This record gives sequence, C-alpha cells and structure tokens, in this order.
Amino acid sequence: MARSPVWASRPKTRGVVLDVIRAARSISRVELAMATGLTGATISEVVRELLGDGLVVEAGRGAPTGGKPRTMVQLNPPARYGVGVQLERNACVIVVVDLAGRPVARTSFHGVESMPPEQALPLVASRVDALLTSAGVDREKVLGVGLVTYGPQDRTAGVQLTPQPTEDWYDYPVAPRLAESLGLPVLLDNDAAAAAIGEYWMGAVDPDSTYGCFYMATGIGGGVVVSGEVYRGSSSNSAEIGHISIDVNGEECPCGNVGCLENYAGPSAVVRQALTMPDLARRLALDPAADDFLTEFSRIAAAANAGDPEARELVERSARYLGHAAVTVSVLFDLDTIVLAGQSFAVAGSLYQAVIQQELDRRLFARKAHPVRVVPSVNGSDAAAIGGAVLVLQSELILGHGRAEDGPRPVPAGAVDQT
Amino acid sequence: MARSPVWASRPKTRGVVLDVIRAARSISRVELAMATGLTGATISEVVRELLGDGLVVEAGRGAPTGGKPRTMVQLNPPARYGVGVQLERNACVIVVVDLAGRPVARTSFHGVESMPPEQALPLVASRVDALLTSAGVDREKVLGVGLVTYGPQDRTAGVQLTPQPTEDWYDYPVAPRLAESLGLPVLLDNDAAAAAIGEYWMGAVDPDSTYGCFYMATGIGGGVVVSGEVYRGSSSNSAEIGHISIDVNGEECPCGNVGCLENYAGPSAVVRQALTMPDLARRLALDPAADDFLTEFSRIAAAANAGDPEARELVERSARYLGHAAVTVSVLFDLDTIVLAGQSFAVAGSLYQAVIQQELDRRLFARKAHPVRVVPSVNGSDAAAIGGAVLVLQSELILGHGRAEDGPRPVPAGAVDQT
Repeated sequence: MARSPVWASRPKTRGVVLDVIRAARSISRVELAMATGLTGATISEVVRELLGDGLVVEAGRGAPTGGKPRTMVQLNPPARYGVGVQLERNACVIVVVDLAGRPVARTSFHGVESMPPEQALPLVASRVDALLTSAGVDREKVLGVGLVTYGPQDRTAGVQLTPQPTEDWYDYPVAPRLAESLGLPVLLDNDAAAAAIGEYWMGAVDPDSTYGCFYMATGIGGGVVVSGEVYRGSSSNSAEIGHISIDVNGEECPCGNVGCLENYAGPSAVVRQALTMPDLARRLALDPAADDFLTEFSRIAAAANAGDPEARELVERSARYLGHAAVTVSVLFDLDTIVLAGQSFAVAGSLYQAVIQQELDRRLFARKAHPVRVVPSVNGSDAAAIGGAVLVLQSELILGHGRAEDGPRPVPAGAVDQT
Repeated sequence: MARSPVWASRPKTRGVVLDVIRAARSISRVELAMATGLTGATISEVVRELLGDGLVVEAGRGAPTGGKPRTMVQLNPPARYGVGVQLERNACVIVVVDLAGRPVARTSFHGVESMPPEQALPLVASRVDALLTSAGVDREKVLGVGLVTYGPQDRTAGVQLTPQPTEDWYDYPVAPRLAESLGLPVLLDNDAAAAAIGEYWMGAVDPDSTYGCFYMATGIGGGVVVSGEVYRGSSSNSAEIGHISIDVNGEECPCGNVGCLENYAGPSAVVRQALTMPDLARRLALDPAADDFLTEFSRIAAAANAGDPEARELVERSARYLGHAAVTVSVLFDLDTIVLAGQSFAVAGSLYQAVIQQELDRRLFARKAHPVRVVPSVNGSDAAAIGGAVLVLQSELILGHGRAEDGPRPVPAGAVDQT
C-alpha cells in the first residue's frame, strides 16, 4: 500500500520545539505554543524534558505583557557539540561547534593531497582528537562528526562514489572507517550541501527562503535549501552545479558529461588559462607543475582584487560562466537568494558577486516575478566544515530518528565488519 | 520570530487520511491507523466524518486475518469533481475528473490563437459549461477549475507574467476573470507542474519517487514532484526547462537568456529547421506561413515515425538537445524518473524516449549512484488538463486550507473588483 507523502513529513515534537528555541534564541512557553501550534500542556512537558537533559536553560523573564512576566527558555550551548570535517585534496578544515552552531575550536591543514584513505583518515582522526583535547570539550557531549567532501556519495553506506582525491577513495567506506578511528558516529555528506545548511543555521538567510549555495573550493559544488532543510532528491546527490553543462558543443569531462561548468569556471580552469598568459604567469610566479590549484588561484584572485587587468579578465570570465550557471539553477529551483561560499569565493567574492548578480538581473526567466539576490557566505572558508557539524546537530536533535527523509543516521563507531 | 521549517509541514489529519484511502483504493480502519500513525479513535472519527460528507463509502470486507473480517472503506468517486483546462495558443483541452482523478468527460478545441483574454476566457467558460451539462455533472459537486498555461505566473493573484499567447495576456487577471464567468473557483498553475502531479495521482510513478515531468506542447516546460508534492521554489515558477541554456555562446532568447533549450529542441525550432530543407518541406507539405507549430510538428513526427530519414534526423537532433537538458535537470534535482508528457511527446514519444535515455545513461554525473529512467506519460495529450483538475482536488481535499506551502487557494468567483 502506498505511503502518504503528506504523512511522511510529520515532525517530531521534541525536535520542533528545540528548533524553534534555537531560531528564536530566547522564548517563553506561551510564545512556543503559538509558534508551534502545540498545546500549552505539551509544550510544558517537552520543555521539562529538555531542561532535564540540560539542552535548554531558563533565562530571566520576558517583557511584561499585562499579565505576570513570563520565564524565558533558551538553548544551553555547551550542553552538546558537533564536529565538522571538510576534507579535500588541497584543503582540510576541522571545527567544533556548540549546540547553537557557534564554532568553539578550529584547525586546518593542507589537505590530504594524494594520500590513500588508509593514511589520510587516521591523520584526520588524530587532528580531531587533538582539537577536542585542546578545546577542553568533553567527548561524552560530542554528538558526532560530519565528514563533508566530494560527491557523488552513497550517504547511507558512508561511501564516496568518486575517485577523488585519488582512485583509492572510490567506493571506500570513509565514514565507517573514520568512526572506527575516532570512536564517534560519523555522518558523510556533500561539502556544498553542508555549506548551504550552515548558512541557514547561522541566520544568514530568511528562514522561509529557497536559496542555493554555490560552493567553490578546488572544485565547484552546490546545495539548495528549502525552508531550512537541504533539498536531497532521490539519493542526496543533488545540485552538483560543477557538472551541469554550459556548452552542448563543449569538450567531454571525466564525469561523462560535455561542457561542464567546472572546466570553464573552476579554480583549476582559471589557473590553466593563466598559465597560457606568459606575462601574467611570470608576474604572479605561477608554477606550471603545481598540484595545488587553491594556492595558485588565490594569487590570481589577489592580483585581480589589486587591479591587475589580465588577472581581472580571467576572474571576470570565470564569474560570467558562473553567472550563466546561476541563471540555470535559479530557473530550475526558483531561488530567491544565492550564497557564495568556500575558499575560492572567500578570496575573490566581491568580483564574483557583482558579475553573477548582473547576469541574473539580465537573463532570468522569472525576473518579473522576483529578483534573485547574490550574497557572500557568513562563514567564509569554514562554511562547509561548520555546516558538517551543523548537519550532525540537526540530524541528532532536530529531525529525530527514523523519518525516511532525514537521510542516513551517522554510522556509529565499530559498525564496520573488519574481516 | 523565526517559524520552524519542520512545523510548517504539519499535515491536516483529514487530508492525510483521505489521501491514504485514495492511494490504497480500498483499506480498513486498522490499516489506515498503521499507515498514518494516528490512533484508532482518531481514524474512526475522521472516517465517520468522511462517510457523513459522502467522500468515502464502506465497501465490503477485507480478507479475514484471524480475527473478525474488517470493513473496507474507499473513495466515492462521484462525490466531487474537478475541472482542468489546458490553455495554449494552438491547443486547448478541458477535462472533468472525479474524486479519484479519473476523467469522466473531455473536450478540446484548437486553442485560443491570438485572441485577447476578453474574448478567449468567455469562450473557455462556455465550453466548460457545455461539458459539465453534457456530462450531467452537478455543479454543486464541482470543487473548482484548474487553469493551466504558460509561466511565469503570479499564482496567488491568478495572473500570467508572460506575453503569451499575445501581449494582451501579460499581467491580465486570468483566474479571477474566468472564475467570474463560470461562477466557480479557479486555480491558476503552470501546465508542466500540472502534468507532473497528474502522473503521480494516476499511479504512474512510485509514491516515494523524485521525478521530473518534461512537458512539450507548443513550448517546453517542466515540473518536479518530490514524494507527491510539486516542487514549488520561492514563487511557484520552478523547473522552466525550456529556458535553461544549453549553449553559453548561443543566441539571445526573448526571455533574456542565451541559448535556451526551447530554441533548439522545441516544436517551433524543429519546424523552422524543416523549412530550410526544401525536399522535406515539399514532401510533408509544410506551410512556411503556418502559425500552428503543433500541427506542422506532428507531420514531421509522423514522417520520422514512418522512417523518413530527414524527418528522423530532425527529431533525433531535438531529442539529443532534450537529453542534454535532461542531464542538467537530473544532476540538479537528483531525479530517479523522467516522464515525457504533452501533445508533442504524444506524437513522437518513443523516438524521444530512446535518445533521452541514452544521453542520461552516458552523461549523468551520479549514474553510479542510480540510473534515471525515462517513461512516457500515462495521460498523453491530456496530461496537463488532467493535472489541472487534480491540483484542484489536491488543494481542496488533501492539503487543506491555510498552510503556507500549499500555495494559493483557488480564486473564488466574484472576487474581482469590476470597476
């Protein structure tokens, strides 16, 4: 028998209440009842439970409204923590966030380069351990780790379905193995989807917004959030904007498609284009043998920001292609906002923002219905890592367990068959 | 204070129960309780109400399961009706469907050509009246009319934001005016979104599916359905696939974008291409002055089906472009199925289906995670009209009133200021 689609989105009461408290920062029980539509009795019971678990605290009294002043409740940020790990070839950021999603500790290193996962994951685990120790965070209060990296993925199994950074990573059980090393649950997700939800959680976008996050680190990815939840599609491999085609006559990409955006606009494409311009390459001391596109791209972006005309031309061309793709994504998802996040936008964001906005204003099919606004990320280079940690908090506390559309639960430590 | 995104999707109990009964066709109260998670007492009360309103009937007993046999309930199809009107320049289909979404009456005419709305809408109203009369449907049982046509639209106001079929239609209050003529509520929606939900309601796709509907009549549109609800985006102007670009270097489209799919693959493009081939144009007696691209396209499609190599080349080229766009849409929405609906696919569907499937199998970024299956519409040429009627039933009975994401309520008759 068919399952009702409407029923499938029934909220968990406790998660709903906790999410409203989080978003409101400080709220009375009466306001909670109004905001959720739940009865006063239910709110009292749920709040009592949350107080008992230490997740919320009572915090002073609200402004008098004629009757007796109301006791306010708010999150207790140090009650729980989430860890976020953004893992890439040329960049790795690790953050610890508290229950309110605020970073309390951060570290980064150069990325896993071409290490196989057997070497890279223990390194990541030791960095996480060290960060938790130096931050003085009690491991008992850590809900888990959000490991965010390249797509496509099998999120349920915690496995990457892409040979990045190297062939060894294809089909490797990254989440179960990291869980095993750390003794903590690990949730695998897409870096761009993580960056997208991180923006929401940090209050950077309107809660009712339908927005896209364009995520550019070494590659280009994307995530779409509708009213506070990541748009997942049939297998959580949605919004891979780096691999939509902008040219039906373009060259074939290793992914199988032709004319993929990433090959025109991504940092590696910009670096390749710069290397064909001898004056520019010499001026910026670009290394033709460099494997680290992020560093080389940052030099070009810095020169563009400083007014170097050749560098600026390259960055603006990349931005033009991204603007072209932004029109496609907006036409399909009917977005109201696009957030630019990730290391590469962090170094050249204002140039990109202006050009992408211009393309949207000129080219968008439904621009008469409403504009699409382009804004920089509030989290900059750490957007994906913070989002990874937020996804763990959201999965554990807000969405609750067992709803089909919540996606996979974190893979618990010790769940891997070691034979 | 921020509204909780989770809470916002709280279902209306009555709508949930009715939708489960609809999808199951015949179900006992015990099974209803299991399927919805509601208590037996709540189910009994809701079913009693639905029986009282005549929306469901008791219908025999289920197979014995050890205890006493259970009384089954099922929809009472003739209890309510919805009307769907697909309105285009070269095609107009009107259907009446019963509560189960099954067409009980149908008519069509040549479309509104270049009539202004003041002339076209009374014509449509008279056709709807005549159809209801000839079908013997009691107007008291008609919940409303789903008018489905070109996007972009302001659905809330019932206004088109596009100068199609002619300039007169831009910003014209089509839904309020038709409601006034008919004395029935009218809901304005996008034809492709309507076609998409029609497929779901008729059981053509898995209820948990994330699927896209590619809709090709005179133009090309699209709709995406996630677990039984149309993906709306910020203003219900989503998935306008005819106006995504397939060529960053392409020509400018009247919509403002460059290289729009519709200008490469749409029926009018195919007819234009055919007119540049003198032998083919003569063989098929194509009329260079023809305004009706649907009829001319049908001739080309019929010739392609019959093996004419030139006609086949044109249709396959169009299909290749559509396949290219299908990859983009699938990469972004992570679809599992694409349904081909509308008049133009109805005449050449199998050629399109094969080529689009081939492109997806070769080019899709996440094809290692899962395939995307291309299937023909179960409703053929009537998909949009049937979907329009279904949207009215869904809006009135299943989604209930007043939820923010339900979109607009039908504009009631007499709501227009007539000054």
